[in-house]
Amino acid sequence: AIIVYRLPWTWKCSKLLMKFIHAGLNTIAMILAIVSMVAVFDFHNAKNIPNMYSLHSWIGLTAVIFYSLQLFLGFAVFLLPFAPVRLRIALMPIHVYSGLAIFATVIATALMGITEKLIFALKNPAYSASPPEATLVNCLGLLLAIFGSLILWMASRPHWKRPPAENAKILRPIGATPEGTEVESTMTNSSNADKSDLRSNTEAARKQNIKFDEAGQRSTM
Amino acid sequence: AIIVYRLPWTWKCSKLLMKFIHAGLNTIAMILAIVSMVAVFDFHNAKNIPNMYSLHSWIGLTAVIFYSLQLFLGFAVFLLPFAPVRLRIALMPIHVYSGLAIFATVIATALMGITEKLIFALKNPAYSASPPEATLVNCLGLLLAIFGSLILWMASRPHWKRPPAENAKILRPIGATPEGTEVESTMTNSSNADKSDLRSNTEAARKQNIKFDEAGQRSTM
Repeated sequence: AIIVYRLPWTWKCSKLLMKFIHAGLNTIAMILAIVSMVAVFDFHNAKNIPNMYSLHSWIGLTAVIFYSLQLFLGFAVFLLPFAPVRLRIALMPIHVYSGLAIFATVIATALMGITEKLIFALKNPAYSASPPEATLVNCLGLLLAIFGSLILWMASRPHWKRPPAENAKILRPIGATPEGTEVESTMTNSSNADKSDLRSNTEAARKQNIKFDEAGQRSTM
Repeated sequence: AIIVYRLPWTWKCSKLLMKFIHAGLNTIAMILAIVSMVAVFDFHNAKNIPNMYSLHSWIGLTAVIFYSLQLFLGFAVFLLPFAPVRLRIALMPIHVYSGLAIFATVIATALMGITEKLIFALKNPAYSASPPEATLVNCLGLLLAIFGSLILWMASRPHWKRPPAENAKILRPIGATPEGTEVESTMTNSSNADKSDLRSNTEAARKQNIKFDEAGQRSTM
């Protein structure tokens, strides 16, 4: 779901279709998360194991709560047509960061869960004797960490961003340029300009550019 | 060390001083990492506990190996004056991503280590009985996760980036604009231009912009 906007073949799909794929995959993941939470609590209750005592459970539940919040806000702001563009622009960086942070937290929670399970399940021979199961599951954990870092790499590369859509232009004032169209400015040709002048221009342009950068996610809105 | 380029009070320091702070803090962290690794192996050997059997140790050692590689490459490419600018531009996004990924991996490793330690150390009452120690250390683990996500938030905000330095301009060809100075282009004023023409211009500009974006880290090079 995270990298659906990062795959070149989806750049040909309409923005709405991509949003539906993104929201749909996340909804499936949320349903699976709820099913697995119910399974864990049922398992604990059946085996008389206390619930929510471990750091794994604390961080995992926090991640699930934030994930449901993220899903709800995502639906309300970015999928339903009611939210104003300003709100979408303001929330998009937070939405993107939260999504990646929740993803990383889930990976960390899974690694903690694997650690717990190996300690509890392997008794004879113990985990510390490195039986084949331990080595196998350690490898799976390592692969999970590699998978997580690859997804975060893909999601954070600017050149894997979806190119701006044609119709995105109508959202911007005439003076502003859509993201990715900041072509070489005429300003740098006036290299004889007063240095302090150039400096203050640069400062102003930098602040403006930051605003565009923040709003730059609008191509996926 | 990660956020040294993100603190407004450091923006007044020279770039070289900031690099020294960044490299110095990371060197201290590396020394502490080596000391703690020696302590762990000594502790294991003294207590006859096998080394390197757990997922925590596998991922932790991987992180330390990548960290030393990161530190060595950082010194060689960005601190010593021999590396050509092209190499610095090419390596900077990888350096930044690796730094953040190693940081997140270290947080995950610490959380796994806390989980292990609580399971092994708390026996009577056990971890699952939630004695005060367990609650306290769980809270510390949660704070560690919150700390990690705050640092990654600070490091990934574009408007917390260090503003481009005056002397950074000399590194760029005359036609190119330094990062943050892409002011409103004259191109958008020609709104009567042929649409397909505008489209191809936009495409070309987007690709170029991406190149700048990648190189955009040069203000910290």
